[in-house]
Amino acid sequence: MTVAENGVPATLVWRDGELHLLDQTRLPFQIHIERQDSAEQVWQSIQQLKVRGAPAIGVAAAYGLCVAMKPHRAMTLEAFRDELQRQARYLESARPTAVNLAWALRRMLVTASQEGFADSDALYARLVTEAQRIHAEDTAICDGIATQGVDLIRSGEGVLTHCNAGALATTGLGTATAPLYLAHQRGTAFRVYADETRPLLQGARLTAWELQRAGIDVTLITDNMAASVMARGLVDLVIVGADRVTANGDVVNKIGTLSVAILARHFGVPFYVACPSSTIDSATATGAQVQIEERAPDEVTSYGGMPTAPNGLQAHNPAFDVTPHALVTGLITEHGIIRAPLDAGLRKLWAEHARHF
Amino acid sequence: MTVAENGVPATLVWRDGELHLLDQTRLPFQIHIERQDSAEQVWQSIQQLKVRGAPAIGVAAAYGLCVAMKPHRAMTLEAFRDELQRQARYLESARPTAVNLAWALRRMLVTASQEGFADSDALYARLVTEAQRIHAEDTAICDGIATQGVDLIRSGEGVLTHCNAGALATTGLGTATAPLYLAHQRGTAFRVYADETRPLLQGARLTAWELQRAGIDVTLITDNMAASVMARGLVDLVIVGADRVTANGDVVNKIGTLSVAILARHFGVPFYVACPSSTIDSATATGAQVQIEERAPDEVTSYGGMPTAPNGLQAHNPAFDVTPHALVTGLITEHGIIRAPLDAGLRKLWAEHARHF
Repeated sequence: MTVAENGVPATLVWRDGELHLLDQTRLPFQIHIERQDSAEQVWQSIQQLKVRGAPAIGVAAAYGLCVAMKPHRAMTLEAFRDELQRQARYLESARPTAVNLAWALRRMLVTASQEGFADSDALYARLVTEAQRIHAEDTAICDGIATQGVDLIRSGEGVLTHCNAGALATTGLGTATAPLYLAHQRGTAFRVYADETRPLLQGARLTAWELQRAGIDVTLITDNMAASVMARGLVDLVIVGADRVTANGDVVNKIGTLSVAILARHFGVPFYVACPSSTIDSATATGAQVQIEERAPDEVTSYGGMPTAPNGLQAHNPAFDVTPHALVTGLITEHGIIRAPLDAGLRKLWAEHARHF
Repeated sequence: MTVAENGVPATLVWRDGELHLLDQTRLPFQIHIERQDSAEQVWQSIQQLKVRGAPAIGVAAAYGLCVAMKPHRAMTLEAFRDELQRQARYLESARPTAVNLAWALRRMLVTASQEGFADSDALYARLVTEAQRIHAEDTAICDGIATQGVDLIRSGEGVLTHCNAGALATTGLGTATAPLYLAHQRGTAFRVYADETRPLLQGARLTAWELQRAGIDVTLITDNMAASVMARGLVDLVIVGADRVTANGDVVNKIGTLSVAILARHFGVPFYVACPSSTIDSATATGAQVQIEERAPDEVTSYGGMPTAPNGLQAHNPAFDVTPHALVTGLITEHGIIRAPLDAGLRKLWAEHARHF
């Protein structure tokens, strides 16, 4: 199943040897697909957030390396591999903190280091195949999360989500949105409440947009309305994504997730986190050990370049917060739903699927 | 004590027989004081929210009636009173739902209906005196709330507030902000976290502005950061205002107040509501009986006329929510702090001060 079938344009497409990216900075007001003609252009697309969301960035970088190497297929194998190293370092510099970016590029380099290629053209063809595999795996993980989580979505019920853990953050059905798309395809009639997610409004600009395109009944609310809609009994389930899940099951995700989790507990609403198993950080014991990125205050004191607060005002702008594992009903991974106690479930997942992490 | 001493311009001033209003629609980017020359101008100032906040609107309307009647002082008493009725009806139509507006105008008409005025000029002088009394009473109520609540503010602590229950909503120190201004004047060093309060951003535009002007240490946060700052132990106290408090102590206030109250309970932070006793609605048993105004969805799907979400998206926009009395630590009124059980405390307040309601 592809989201395109639901009316949402693909985040990226590889077609006739070329990479085409949806420019997410123009969403939701313009759907602009941009052909990527050079490594420089792919670098800028990642850096400027034309493509965003850790899984999607990884796939874009792998294809970006193919775009970069295509003109060099007449080189000797040795010169081609040197150029490949250089281009990979360049692409990685686009967003140094994005883990999937470095991971995908490393995987491409490991592939290129294998023996037995007749010439650079053959190695180039193998790199394209590897990028397509990374792409296919990302899409399949979304499908896995969809299948594992779909039964949580019931007809007549309301689902609340926060930020964009959607199709636009991946090359498939998204993470938090994956069960929603599959349930919708199966004819389940439900309603989604999308938090707008200040300061950068990913909920309003991206989640609401992609669900609306797919024909899912979605209602936008400001972040501070979540309690009100829960108090009215309109929310039966919360699903959010995760940037990192620590060994004890603490969830590091977009600022505001903790607030939603506490409200869900107060109103007795199940709170699920959809996350590829690659999001699970077994090396970090608890969320308290995770460094929370503090972003520029002007994201809080303005909207879209327009000031919303007096000049010189101090503002707080943590990009993420930590939701303690005790507030999490379950983690929806592509291998199954992990329920409390989360730490034991996570250990079992590692034991069974460690090769994927 | 006036807020002007703290650097915050007065919401309105009556000087040399003329009304001067701070145009709040230009805040925080421009401080513009506008002289009101006619009933039409006062009507527009109320209607366009140049003056806002129920207490401030009441005072502006009383003075507005003086502005309207000043040119008619040469009339016979009978003609003057007829004209007064007409002007009061006109001013009341500026914002038909604002209770204080109708209340202040009715009080002016009752004053005018008394016997013993030598001529219209004498009656006009009496109307000015009555408007000044309404003004002084509003200011005094703020001072009362300040005095009752000031000991809740302790040095080194953090206070979170939501929306603008500030000086700008009254003609004095505000309601939720009153204890803050008095504590600051007494040299207590504390920090305020101001929720920006989407969709209309009264926290960012008004509360952060007036506290900053007064030299109080204020940090702006988006609404969804309240849980994060509480989790970090930065908030020791919450004070918000109220649009209405029902007989059982349920609090109807700006959307998002319920969320803050639930978070405060989760983190063990005291949650106080500052409210003039006139806010207490003894005729309504519980918050469930209060009709919640649903405002236009474009407030949620845009900011300052700039769209933030896709075209045609449905949005939810309740202006208020109801915080159950069980989540309220105390009500700070000008007559004292009412603590749980709130219903009994409220009955005692009515018994002692019923003439003021």
